[in-house]
Amino acid sequence: MTPNTVEKTPVTLLGLGAMGTALARAWLAAGHPLTVWNRTPARTTPLAAKGARVADTAAEAVAANTLVVLCLLDDSSVDEVLAGTDLAGRDLVNLTTSTPAQARARAEWARERGARYLDGGIMAVPPMIGVPEAGGYVFHSGSRELFERHRETLGVPAGTTYVGEDPGFAALHDVALLSAMYGMFAGAAHAFALIREEDIDPTALAPLLADWLVAMAPAVHRTADQLRSGDYTKGVVSNLAMQVAGTPTLLSTAEHQGVSPELLTPYFELMRRRLAQGSGEEDLTGVIDLLAH
Amino acid sequence: MTPNTVEKTPVTLLGLGAMGTALARAWLAAGHPLTVWNRTPARTTPLAAKGARVADTAAEAVAANTLVVLCLLDDSSVDEVLAGTDLAGRDLVNLTTSTPAQARARAEWARERGARYLDGGIMAVPPMIGVPEAGGYVFHSGSRELFERHRETLGVPAGTTYVGEDPGFAALHDVALLSAMYGMFAGAAHAFALIREEDIDPTALAPLLADWLVAMAPAVHRTADQLRSGDYTKGVVSNLAMQVAGTPTLLSTAEHQGVSPELLTPYFELMRRRLAQGSGEEDLTGVIDLLAH
Ligand SMILES: NC(=O)c1ccc[n+]([C@@H]2O[C@H](COP(=O)([O-])OP(=O)(O)OC[C@H]3O[C@@H](n4cnc5c(N)ncnc54)[C@H](OP(=O)(O)O)[C@@H]3O)[C@@H](O)[C@H]2O)c1
Ligand SMILES: NC(=O)c1ccc[n+]([C@@H]2O[C@H](COP(=O)([O-])OP(=O)(O)OC[C@H]3O[C@@H](n4cnc5c(N)ncnc54)[C@H](OP(=O)(O)O)[C@@H]3O)[C@@H](O)[C@H]2O)c1
Repeated sequence: MTPNTVEKTPVTLLGLGAMGTALARAWLAAGHPLTVWNRTPARTTPLAAKGARVADTAAEAVAANTLVVLCLLDDSSVDEVLAGTDLAGRDLVNLTTSTPAQARARAEWARERGARYLDGGIMAVPPMIGVPEAGGYVFHSGSRELFERHRETLGVPAGTTYVGEDPGFAALHDVALLSAMYGMFAGAAHAFALIREEDIDPTALAPLLADWLVAMAPAVHRTADQLRSGDYTKGVVSNLAMQVAGTPTLLSTAEHQGVSPELLTPYFELMRRRLAQGSGEEDLTGVIDLLAH
Repeated sequence: MTPNTVEKTPVTLLGLGAMGTALARAWLAAGHPLTVWNRTPARTTPLAAKGARVADTAAEAVAANTLVVLCLLDDSSVDEVLAGTDLAGRDLVNLTTSTPAQARARAEWARERGARYLDGGIMAVPPMIGVPEAGGYVFHSGSRELFERHRETLGVPAGTTYVGEDPGFAALHDVALLSAMYGMFAGAAHAFALIREEDIDPTALAPLLADWLVAMAPAVHRTADQLRSGDYTKGVVSNLAMQVAGTPTLLSTAEHQGVSPELLTPYFELMRRRLAQGSGEEDLTGVIDLLAH
């Protein structure tokens, strides 16, 4: 090490799948001493060539550094990998996708073993890791102290967003955003299906669709304001009665184009149920009350 | 009229609901001579005060100008309003929301009566009309000649996007975009429902959700490329097998948060069906094949 090199926090990383490998490369590129372990040893070779220290066992990797990052397939692989490792005094950062309940249980499990715990939910795909312009980031929740201590190191592969002491909140935010994304993808799938049999180039529809979705996404701010105030008529642009009245045009177009309405009908059905409760002057927000009990 | 005023195309507008009134104000503000008619005459008063000529009957309004714009409730109100009017030689622009089938039938109906026909689908709400920065626009389809002739006049209330000679295409594009929007809103509703019982402020989730949806919307370009090439593995980031493997985390989180999965399951079911066809290496695009027959 040359005298003018700033000491970077050493990191242990368990799990070198597509995501783990991308994380490893980002930390190595930033000059962090890195110890890696993977169930299938062959995946360590390219990283060793870039300067990673390869541990023979998970226990050895955990023993090597205070900061231990997990990027495994799922919560049960975390169990398998950490069995027989000594976690006392470790700063455990678990980037393995899990449910909020799994994350909460894992935090408690770590506490019992003398480790601090921070959970993480990665909002990026591997090609976005180490590429700040790509806008990927990781939700973190759990020990704020641990997050603050390692903020800089954790921010190397992608941005970080801390969402609370509850260790389940990172996973909950992750799942909330992915769920919303699948809704948007479902809507887009229906849109492309509608033009399938027509002489319309899907690459001509795509920019119109993308611009429209981008223009409509900020409607979630109005929804949030309404949820917070409890007043679902606040700032309404097209009320529920008008929107329900518009649904037959969408459904009959789908039918005429030979497209199954299955991706639209569940939402329209909730809109109708809410309208039937006498909420015609409201925004669409009341649908949320019917979903969560 | 002062000598240096440029002659603006005179417009007849039938229908002064929320949208028709907004259109009327925009044309008046831009200096277009405007003749209006509405079933309920009271709605003409504020426009007359701003310089609109008020016709006593729809027939009189149609007779007043070559360019006749309709903004009525639905296709059957168009029937009622135009019954007994002389459409010969008119340039009919129908901004009334309709299905592609209704628009095609209306174009034929207009042709039989000696009128040129342009259909329109308004991608804006009334407050966006006459406010170019708001980004609202109208899809037009049908007579290209008519569109080109009145392009400037039609562009006064909002932008215009011509999508083809088929008079049904404006409505089809309109319905496609609205359908996709409802998918996105359904996804966002599920996301807000997930945090409902937690100590998470919906107005803190909203910006994360909006940014995420905006970041993911451009995925429709990849979908379009894949549809055009027929190669659904082209540029795949997370393949179908991986995405299906991730769905239990989303569903079990919903269950744990007491949220009905009904807005997610139809899409997940299609993903599973497509995977079962041996398409694990593909993107999500194959779902579209299952929707449209
Ligand atoms: N890839 C993405 O786009 C993405 C995006 C966001 C979040 N994530 C999350 O990041 C995590 C890792 O994803 P990935 O894409 O890297 O997955 P992956 O490529 O499938 O890699 C899985 C990793 O887990 C290891 N593993 C699986 N089961 C194990 C077990 N029983 N014992 C020990 N190790 C085991 C694998 O080891 P072997 O090499 O021995 O098989 C491999 O290192 C997941 O939780 C995923 O949800 C991924
Ligand atoms: N508002 C929006 O956000 C929006 C957005 C995009 C597209 N659009 C479309 O724009 C069109 C007009 O919408 P709007 O918001 O102005 O609706 P609106 O406020 O309900 O007004 C409906 C208009 O249609 C007239 N009408 C209804 N039935 C009629 C009949 N049988 N005979 C004669 N006139 C009749 C009404 O006349 P009376 O005054 O006599 O009732 C009124 O002028 C619709 O096709 C709508 O889908 C609206």
